[in-house]
Parts: sequence; structure tokens; C-alpha cells
Amino acid sequence: MLTRKEYMKARAKAVEMIRGAGIAITEEETENIEVVDFGLGHLAVEGAQILTFFSTARVSVKVIALFPYQTEPEHWHPAIGDDPGKEETIRVVWGTVRFYLPGEPTASPEAIPPGKESFYTVRHEVLLHPCQQLTIEPGTKHWFKAGPEGAVMYSFSTCARDVMDRFSDPAVVRLPQIVEG
Amino acid sequence: MLTRKEYMKARAKAVEMIRGAGIAITEEETENIEVVDFGLGHLAVEGAQILTFFSTARVSVKVIALFPYQTEPEHWHPAIGDDPGKEETIRVVWGTVRFYLPGEPTASPEAIPPGKESFYTVRHEVLLHPCQQLTIEPGTKHWFKAGPEGAVMYSFSTCARDVMDRFSDPAVVRLPQIVEG
Repeated sequence: MLTRKEYMKARAKAVEMIRGAGIAITEEETENIEVVDFGLGHLAVEGAQILTFFSTARVSVKVIALFPYQTEPEHWHPAIGDDPGKEETIRVVWGTVRFYLPGEPTASPEAIPPGKESFYTVRHEVLLHPCQQLTIEPGTKHWFKAGPEGAVMYSFSTCARDVMDRFSDPAVVRLPQIVEG
Repeated sequence: MLTRKEYMKARAKAVEMIRGAGIAITEEETENIEVVDFGLGHLAVEGAQILTFFSTARVSVKVIALFPYQTEPEHWHPAIGDDPGKEETIRVVWGTVRFYLPGEPTASPEAIPPGKESFYTVRHEVLLHPCQQLTIEPGTKHWFKAGPEGAVMYSFSTCARDVMDRFSDPAVVRLPQIVEG
């Protein structure tokens, strides 16, 4: 849960980062940025700022801004009906981000938010710099963490059904909840 | 057909426009830019410069650079097997571009390349500025023309099978052919 004040502050910072990365967005789009704390109550540690350019039944394009060292919790995109699940290609525009995927674990325990080890199970690290891309196949567990400056990246994907995403941490609530204050 | 010299010159100009629009691309990507004259032999009139970021069986992302007043000929994306055809969302990043689609014709005969009236059949104009988006449904005839400065735009789509695109002008050859010289 976020207060309105926290939400407005995070949104303003995300706008600055997105525009600073050279991505032009409209005033209306600035107001559509989701500030997602995943219901965990510590946005700076586990969270993400997400702007959806558009989302159809077949394609979705989002811009994700991460604050320094901010982590998006481990999740995956399950099959839904005839859809084998969301396929997602990341392209970093600014900053650096470490992705964690299934495979040989990389020695980097400091990347996992303290006390959350059991909810961050995949530990093969891929470091992405600007212009680098990574395609995440449907159903693949993944989580990611920004470097010291934060990061701005595109997510190009098939149909996005965010509320159907599955998270390893049962405490996660995907839809942002904002309270006045 | 393009000469190597024409190709290199157009590619260099496209790189300058794409980077000038704030889109960071790698040196390798600059070399992957397609310069497409559609086999019509007058690139500045009918042509496009296209960089594919990636292309999977489900999603494709391209950057299209158009020179001033350059026109991409009328075409559509047909159904292929189980695929209802490519769905494509355009987002303009820099410059302006006029899209032409089925619907009430807009009075703008000057937009059609001279002598090509019979191959440009849809004439409902939609003018796009930076940050504006347009989704083109599968099977929908469309063509587009850059404004006086040229244009840089994203094409976010389902699976792209460029060689399967259908063009109104039977003289079109989609794959670029480059000759030495």
C-alpha cells in the first residue's frame, strides 16, 4: 500500500528518468504511470514504475523505470487458455539491470532483498546494459534488479494480463493500492 | 535495385535520424538497417529504412526512418495459416507522418507518388505527431508518407513475415537488392 504522497513522488521521479533516457511521453502518459509496490510496503526495495504505451489482445509495450537497486519480485507468466503465456523481450535504454533466470546460480546473494531468499529461487544472472536485449519465454521464472543509477527499459511482449502473473512471494499484490496521505 | 553507394548513403542518413530522435542503437544495429526501395528504383520517392530490433514467432519490433516526403507503398498483412495476419502499432518518435487507411477519402492527392494513383487506393488520412500511436488491424490496406522533415517511428507488431506482405503495386519487390557501384 502506498500513500498518495509516495505515489506522486515516485511517479515524478519515474517521469524524469524516462524522459532523461530520451523517451518522449505525453502529459497524459505521465499520469498513467503505475507505481507498483507489490503490496509489500517498501517501494524502494521491491517495486517498479510502469508505463503501458498500449496493450491489445496480441501485443503490449511498456516502459519500466527502476530506482537505484530497486527489485521486481520473482514472477512468471503462466499459460492462460489457448495462450502459452506472455513472451517478453526486454531492451534496456538507460542504466543497468541484472536479470535472474533459471540456470547455473551466479554468486550474488546481495541482490536478494534481505529475508526474502525463499521467494527468489532463480539465480542465474544476466547483466544488461543500454541497447542490450533479453527474451523471456512464457512460464520462465524471473526477477530483476537495477544497478546503482537505476534503469529504464522497454518491455515488448505478447498479450499482458498483469493480474494473472504468478509471484513466488505469496504476499505480493500486483495491483497498486493507494491511500490518501 | 540500389547501388552499394546509394545504400551506404541512405543507411548513414537513417542512423543519424534514428540517433537524433533519441533512440540509442549499437554499431551492429546500424549495419543491419535495411534500405528498401521496393524494387521501384526511386528510393527518395517510394522507400523506407528499417531496423529490426528483434523478431520472434510472436512479436516484432522495428524502427522505421523515412526521409522527407518518402512514401511506403500501399500494402497489407494477410492471414497466414493460423495467424490472422500481422497486427501493427505505430508510435511516432520524431517528425510527422501521414497514414492512409480505408474510410472516407481525405482530399490530398499530392500525397500519392505521380502516376501511381491506381496503386494507392485507400485515402483516409491520419496525421501522426511524436508520441501519437495508431494500431493497424490485420489485413487492412495502408500506406504512409513522411512530412517535410522526415520521420522516425516504432512499429510494434505480432510476427512479421515481411516477404509475405501484399502490395497493391505489382512491381514491388520487398527484399532489397543491392548491386555494386
